Amino acid sequence: MGSVARGNGLSPHLAQHIESVLPKDNTRHSLGTSVIPSLLRSISDVAKGLRAAQDVTHAGTANTFGDEQLNVDVIAENHIREALALCPAVKVASSEEDPVERAVTHSASALSDNPGTEHYTVAFDPLDGSSIIAPNWTVGTIIGIWDGGESALSQRPAEKQIAAILGVFGPRTTAVVAVRVPGAPATCFEVGLGEGEIGLWEVVRPMVQLGEAAAQKTRYFAPANLRAAAEDERYMNLVNHYMRNKYTLRYSGGLVPDVVHALVKGHGIYLSPVTGASKAKLRRLYELCPLALIVECAGGRAVDPADGTDILAREIKNCDERGGLICGTREEVDAAISSLLGKLWCQHRLQ
Amino acid sequence: MGSVARGNGLSPHLAQHIESVLPKDNTRHSLGTSVIPSLLRSISDVAKGLRAAQDVTHAGTANTFGDEQLNVDVIAENHIREALALCPAVKVASSEEDPVERAVTHSASALSDNPGTEHYTVAFDPLDGSSIIAPNWTVGTIIGIWDGGESALSQRPAEKQIAAILGVFGPRTTAVVAVRVPGAPATCFEVGLGEGEIGLWEVVRPMVQLGEAAAQKTRYFAPANLRAAAEDERYMNLVNHYMRNKYTLRYSGGLVPDVVHALVKGHGIYLSPVTGASKAKLRRLYELCPLALIVECAGGRAVDPADGTDILAREIKNCDERGGLICGTREEVDAAISSLLGKLWCQHRLQ
Repeated sequence: MGSVARGNGLSPHLAQHIESVLPKDNTRHSLGTSVIPSLLRSISDVAKGLRAAQDVTHAGTANTFGDEQLNVDVIAENHIREALALCPAVKVASSEEDPVERAVTHSASALSDNPGTEHYTVAFDPLDGSSIIAPNWTVGTIIGIWDGGESALSQRPAEKQIAAILGVFGPRTTAVVAVRVPGAPATCFEVGLGEGEIGLWEVVRPMVQLGEAAAQKTRYFAPANLRAAAEDERYMNLVNHYMRNKYTLRYSGGLVPDVVHALVKGHGIYLSPVTGASKAKLRRLYELCPLALIVECAGGRAVDPADGTDILAREIKNCDERGGLICGTREEVDAAISSLLGKLWCQHRLQ
Repeated sequence: MGSVARGNGLSPHLAQHIESVLPKDNTRHSLGTSVIPSLLRSISDVAKGLRAAQDVTHAGTANTFGDEQLNVDVIAENHIREALALCPAVKVASSEEDPVERAVTHSASALSDNPGTEHYTVAFDPLDGSSIIAPNWTVGTIIGIWDGGESALSQRPAEKQIAAILGVFGPRTTAVVAVRVPGAPATCFEVGLGEGEIGLWEVVRPMVQLGEAAAQKTRYFAPANLRAAAEDERYMNLVNHYMRNKYTLRYSGGLVPDVVHALVKGHGIYLSPVTGASKAKLRRLYELCPLALIVECAGGRAVDPADGTDILAREIKNCDERGGLICGTREEVDAAISSLLGKLWCQHRLQ
């Protein structure tokens, strides 16, 4: 792995950090020197694209799910696809904007560069948070990297999704990276990305960790899909519980900034339950699984509010599968699930 | 005013727009050609500074109010002070970081440029939202421009604060500008700022307007200082009213992005009530008055939750005066005040 710092232009510090979180046996060489660096570069490119998109307009096209596409979605999709074309190890990819798994066509230079036997599948949401783009709030990119060059479907996510990246587009451009490959400890770290000057990118948090808030500390909650509270008294009670206990509210409505808030603060809870009338909106392949890996690698939990099982425990059968999400500090997630599912009600009574 | 487009490098479109919202009698020449353009330029400079501040660290100094200062606060303060030094018409300035009104020392080139008889006082919060800088959420700058070169204190804000600017630092850099000078209609508009290339700045919304949400539309609420709900049953009831009526939650905890969200969506309500234990935090001079002018110029209301009076109705006696805020769509503000103050309770009963 001595060549990590060569070729891709990363600063020695960042290259060494990435090298340090991968197994020493060189089995993840391409992941560390090609896939992660290329995707980080694409996040920097997306940031530049967003910056230049002063007048955020509709592109006039709809994606396969029927959502309206903003021109910035198209910009983001294209930058990430270009990055994948430079990674010979990435064999298959799909995205929320084009949710069909297809073989990646590599650029000629990338092919001549092919180093070996690693094969990956990538699934990504190029730009999450379209409702808050117009008011200029922070938005994000979500990327999952799966072992194997055939498909991310019908695999056990907990084992086969081996890395994830969140791009965060705010006043700065940052990225949160999680890696969990056999032979090395799971890890989550944060990178500060400049624009263009790759050599200046920095590891700003070598260990992103979710722990319990100290008793005197602010406790954060982010209640998504809050309209569901009008239909589900348990969710209403839980939100009232947070209010009565003086939790601090931070909820932007962007999945990436909302989860990253907890990661950077070191604690917090994000809830997006599902009810009959308020349908599940979050895509398991493009949103839930990558976020769950990030949260687990930071020491937290990410569960399905429908049954309290880990998001990563269940195979994904098709690209459009959706669900809810509760994630954050383990203790907070466990307490929320107890309330919402009504289990252990006596022991975990609110108030 | 034919010289608006000359010298300051604004695009003809933006220069003409600013010219169009000022009186035709040339009495606000410096405001349109020097003060507003210089402050917009400083917002662009602050954006660049934030972008480069990968590792947001404490500057190791405290401001006069005892808040910890982040290095980015210092960067923002300096850029805005530099902009004011280039505006001969700005005679006095103070900021939340240095809350003492002092004469502005102008740069030599600015002095030789002095065009005339306009005198202004500027009061600004260089960087609002320090708690959400680390997680890379959108933050902002708040600037109020007052008629007269002596002081902003002991003046009627509704008449003497004649312009305000919000800088919004997110994936893009944008600014919301309000102008209300005698002899021209009040107006609020949004500008998209590039970085460095002033000639490319665009008027992205010529008329920012807060109106009632159509019946079928999403209704937004932003409940700040939510811990006060644990102490004030009326606030708790009001928040529960929004939840039961399926309002959509958007609350970042940054005053600028939270109010700008409503402005860009065209409707919404922001609430920051005050209770005995949850003290008023918002500074009247640096935060409340500029925001209130922006909201009023957009057709909304901004009131003091303590008594329901307009924020701009009362003189400011000292730079550190603080208060709460309820602002947004007029109908929503009136309904919220009725609930919180208990007046008209029978007519406005919740549920």
